Amino acid sequence: MKNYHMLRPSDIKITGGILGEKRRLIAGVTVPYIGNALCDEVAGIRKSGSVENFRIASGEVRKEFHGLVSQDSDLFKWMEAASLALAQQEENGFLGEKGNKETSRNMGLRARLKELADLLERCQMKDGYLNTYYIINGLKHKWSYLKESCQLYCAGHLLEAAVTNYEVTGERSLLEIAMKYGDCIDRAFGAEEGKIHGYDGHAEIELALYRLYEATGMDKYRDLADFFVEERGKQPYFFNQEKGNVDVTGNLVYELKEDDFHHSQSHLPVREQKEVVGHAVKAAYFYTAAADKARLSKDEKLYEAVEGLWEDVTEKKMFLTGAIGSSEYGESFTYAYDLPGDLMYGETCAAIGLFLWGYHMLRMDTDRKYSDVMERALFNGILGGISEDGKKFFYTNPLEMDPERCKKRKDYSHLETERQSWFDCPCCPPNIARLILSFNRYMYTASLGELNIHFFASSAADIEGWHVEQRTEYPAEGKIMLTVERKGEGKGRLRIRVPGWCENFIIKADGKKVEGTLEKGYLLMEEDFSHKKIIELDLDMPLKKVYANGRVKSLAGKAAVMRGPLVYCLEQADNGELFDLFFKETGKLEMGEDGTVLAEGYRMAGPGSGLYTYQKPDYREENIRLLPYYRWNNRGAGQMRVFLGERGYLNGSEDKR
Amino acid sequence: MKNYHMLRPSDIKITGGILGEKRRLIAGVTVPYIGNALCDEVAGIRKSGSVENFRIASGEVRKEFHGLVSQDSDLFKWMEAASLALAQQEENGFLGEKGNKETSRNMGLRARLKELADLLERCQMKDGYLNTYYIINGLKHKWSYLKESCQLYCAGHLLEAAVTNYEVTGERSLLEIAMKYGDCIDRAFGAEEGKIHGYDGHAEIELALYRLYEATGMDKYRDLADFFVEERGKQPYFFNQEKGNVDVTGNLVYELKEDDFHHSQSHLPVREQKEVVGHAVKAAYFYTAAADKARLSKDEKLYEAVEGLWEDVTEKKMFLTGAIGSSEYGESFTYAYDLPGDLMYGETCAAIGLFLWGYHMLRMDTDRKYSDVMERALFNGILGGISEDGKKFFYTNPLEMDPERCKKRKDYSHLETERQSWFDCPCCPPNIARLILSFNRYMYTASLGELNIHFFASSAADIEGWHVEQRTEYPAEGKIMLTVERKGEGKGRLRIRVPGWCENFIIKADGKKVEGTLEKGYLLMEEDFSHKKIIELDLDMPLKKVYANGRVKSLAGKAAVMRGPLVYCLEQADNGELFDLFFKETGKLEMGEDGTVLAEGYRMAGPGSGLYTYQKPDYREENIRLLPYYRWNNRGAGQMRVFLGERGYLNGSEDKR
Repeated sequence: MKNYHMLRPSDIKITGGILGEKRRLIAGVTVPYIGNALCDEVAGIRKSGSVENFRIASGEVRKEFHGLVSQDSDLFKWMEAASLALAQQEENGFLGEKGNKETSRNMGLRARLKELADLLERCQMKDGYLNTYYIINGLKHKWSYLKESCQLYCAGHLLEAAVTNYEVTGERSLLEIAMKYGDCIDRAFGAEEGKIHGYDGHAEIELALYRLYEATGMDKYRDLADFFVEERGKQPYFFNQEKGNVDVTGNLVYELKEDDFHHSQSHLPVREQKEVVGHAVKAAYFYTAAADKARLSKDEKLYEAVEGLWEDVTEKKMFLTGAIGSSEYGESFTYAYDLPGDLMYGETCAAIGLFLWGYHMLRMDTDRKYSDVMERALFNGILGGISEDGKKFFYTNPLEMDPERCKKRKDYSHLETERQSWFDCPCCPPNIARLILSFNRYMYTASLGELNIHFFASSAADIEGWHVEQRTEYPAEGKIMLTVERKGEGKGRLRIRVPGWCENFIIKADGKKVEGTLEKGYLLMEEDFSHKKIIELDLDMPLKKVYANGRVKSLAGKAAVMRGPLVYCLEQADNGELFDLFFKETGKLEMGEDGTVLAEGYRMAGPGSGLYTYQKPDYREENIRLLPYYRWNNRGAGQMRVFLGERGYLNGSEDKR
Repeated sequence: MKNYHMLRPSDIKITGGILGEKRRLIAGVTVPYIGNALCDEVAGIRKSGSVENFRIASGEVRKEFHGLVSQDSDLFKWMEAASLALAQQEENGFLGEKGNKETSRNMGLRARLKELADLLERCQMKDGYLNTYYIINGLKHKWSYLKESCQLYCAGHLLEAAVTNYEVTGERSLLEIAMKYGDCIDRAFGAEEGKIHGYDGHAEIELALYRLYEATGMDKYRDLADFFVEERGKQPYFFNQEKGNVDVTGNLVYELKEDDFHHSQSHLPVREQKEVVGHAVKAAYFYTAAADKARLSKDEKLYEAVEGLWEDVTEKKMFLTGAIGSSEYGESFTYAYDLPGDLMYGETCAAIGLFLWGYHMLRMDTDRKYSDVMERALFNGILGGISEDGKKFFYTNPLEMDPERCKKRKDYSHLETERQSWFDCPCCPPNIARLILSFNRYMYTASLGELNIHFFASSAADIEGWHVEQRTEYPAEGKIMLTVERKGEGKGRLRIRVPGWCENFIIKADGKKVEGTLEKGYLLMEEDFSHKKIIELDLDMPLKKVYANGRVKSLAGKAAVMRGPLVYCLEQADNGELFDLFFKETGKLEMGEDGTVLAEGYRMAGPGSGLYTYQKPDYREENIRLLPYYRWNNRGAGQMRVFLGERGYLNGSEDKR
């Protein structure tokens, strides 16, 4: 089992492609926008109150707490995203400036981060506790109702923000606050007598403590995370025994009426869990932490348990876009092969969680069963969560949208017909910002002798003695030019991921075809990299129809279109009414203008008289235009579909006729 | 505009066929079963408490009220069904006895009805008020919270039971109680100052008062019904102004959080309503009453309004089975062409309500747009509501069932995977009993010179001077032998419905083909019927595929199978897994054993490896067995589908190849 450490965000620069563009947009537009929203400085959107809550908690303002118990986490996630934006100033010639000179954007961000760190310091209690809801509403309820009060969840995001801020800026002020809070939590929770033998209903503190441990090297944070990971699911159930807090009810994200331990993955100890259940984000965050524990303690058994859960979700419970969460109720998983693209939930944060979980698996094992899923989620379920202008966001990410249905049917009312400027629970906007801005650090895993290339984007990186550059239009095309050089003597091991979607590929090193079988989907080159080596990847990337496993009842007889990692969809803006369209079973697919795709299809015409009739509908040939899923809904509300029914010939092609 | 009166149940005897069988089952098994359930004498089912509530209200028992505020209505509906069962003793040689001699069953029913009438009399307040919830919990809340307290709804069912009981038995004891209650309501409600200018959230009292008026000839009941019909929907909204009653909350059927006047059709006066909205049962009962008002006052404008609403529901919002109510939320209609057979509600009572509404339209206008829908609902959506053993019932009647989905997904949890022995809200069991037992009276409308034959079943009737007999296996076959004779001289007008589903038919009178165009779907014969005339109908009844209007998004590319009025469905018990089956577009349909149908189809095989794949699924030919929808779910829980996707050739048949 490997133990790759997390790379520093500053060490990998992305210089182009979709991800370059999105990172530029997010750093330049989204991060400032969210920052303003959290300060209630954006007109016409719902109030956040997030920063104001801290001003109230610090005693500077006299008001009531505003929002949900999870509200602090929005700011912390933004602080992490803003720190990452700082690290990214050189990319893409941002604002036309290069080098170390501070941009005005960065000066603004740096100042705001400093101001916020000062505010947090003023709010923090002497014992380190720092949660505005409980500071404002009464500390007697501190650490109560952990099932739904999100206290440790919020704390976790503070820890993550602090670690990232420290990695990027080298400044310790936020890290000190986080460590003080970490110590406070450590004094309150643990196996020892007198401590709370409990955990949070929404996992997050666990993975954050591991990050704090890895940043500071202080064992206590790791030990505490270990405790949380192993404690969850033990009997008697903590949530049945903990100190309740009825006051909090009005501010809960939601409250499940039943004693549903599955919802928070606390129905069984993680080692005994065989199926992924419950809230999709909670699950992904928890299993991420469980992966960390397995890696840090080289615990093969725990790895296998978490690997089994990964396979359960990715082979039975994941939508084509990498979205997870089949049901609005509990924002949760349901059961194997239940993947209704219309009724689903598919929270942006859940796809992000899946990506992160995959990455923490990849730190142990260079297997494309992790990186393929991460890429699927990234280019579809995650990127689809943010608008082209960087200021609107999806919370839910269905594979089929009928605005009329969503507006008029209660059972579809959880789906947004358009990306939103803000939310009552604005967890997704800062989460997508921090994920995309940290994408560069997930592109590789490396050690002194090893470099594993997981993802492709024009970029330059200096990591663990390796210098690696990529030039590519990926995923618009499958050609990638790699330049790899390694300081030091002797052979180095380079692994290059050949994506699972790729059926044919050629890899050349210095102009010569590289032969070799794939190991877990990675091509291994073991040689001397002390001189710059040029490696060309040519990943065949045709347009393809994709079918779901026959056990997915809702997708029988249906197909979707993909090209490489990109899932395509149809929009009403291009095709008119979508629900009477079908793909021609043997129909051609070809690239159209502006990255769109044209597919041969049929449109049902009629029957039109009466509600029910013996008259067969007519089908007429019609070309269908598709565009990448992540680009949908940038032209107003409208119908959207990913899967369409296929019509055609039995077991044969039209040509055979 | 016609004004046919309702025929007496005793005047039409049904002697065979499906309906004969079901009536025998319901009179012999279902009515006693429900009677026992209401007395809490059936072991192993949920408590009803319905009769016990009356014992508590009478002071004989000291206990808490049990159940919902609508609980009284269950008993009243049962009393109506039991009265009808009494009227039906001669049919089918029930219990092997013929003639007027009382069967032991009837003696039992008669005694129980008498006992219950006595109990009701003991409960009734001096002013006539009779509602156990409010008698037990405090009369200070009488007539409060009419929006959801079901007081007048319950009263309406008492009135209906009393009228039917009087029609069948000639005894007045129950009728007196009903009239006394009617008088009490009349003193409380009305346009006059000092009275409540309101109405019930659940329509029913209106149609019941019209029945009481027609049975007693007393105008006050009709005037009060007129008031209720016209008052609903006036502004300011009554439900915003009425006396609240918070105590009732725990016993409500449900409570909508919003001020949703659409739910109870009280958003607009009925004359201004253009679209059917809200709770499907409430809607059907209300429009039934509005039809009564139109008929009794010969109000063409009101007729047109209600006709428009009928067309809205039957041409845009009705499932193939005659089920209505597309959404569980509010048990309600949604919007035009929103007919999802899987997520739908389709309450048995709503299909019954649609049938009754259609009948009251038919009393004004002999148009098959009413009787066709009634027949569709009867043989599918209504008959499907009761099990073959007569002791289990569906509340919801979907067109697609996947038991796993219903058990594991919250958004499908309103659907029962199997018929239930009893319900917390057991409105459907006695309702289906009273509907089927009163079916005979809806078969015809008649006046001295006119006889309109709406429905077909082996039967004999003496109505308004007409003697009419039917011999047929309908709907198992389309041949009907009619014998018609009329007392009196001169020409009579006989109208025979030619069902809308029938494309070819031959009608012969005394062996000679009758020519003539259909008027509103009825063949008119105007001649002397003073001598017995033998009329043979041969309605061509092939197996047919049926398609929904192209605007029904959820049914694009799908077909169902019908034969005559019967909708067919597939069950897992016959076909295994159903969600990978398709009809062959040009495939044959043929009758199989025991009333089943065989259809040529395809089964998708695979793809089986991985969750998503480029591999196309295979399709294999497979025969599909179907059975009439009303017979589904008599072999345990399992998948069921009515509509299947069709696979085949574009705009052509396989034969053309």
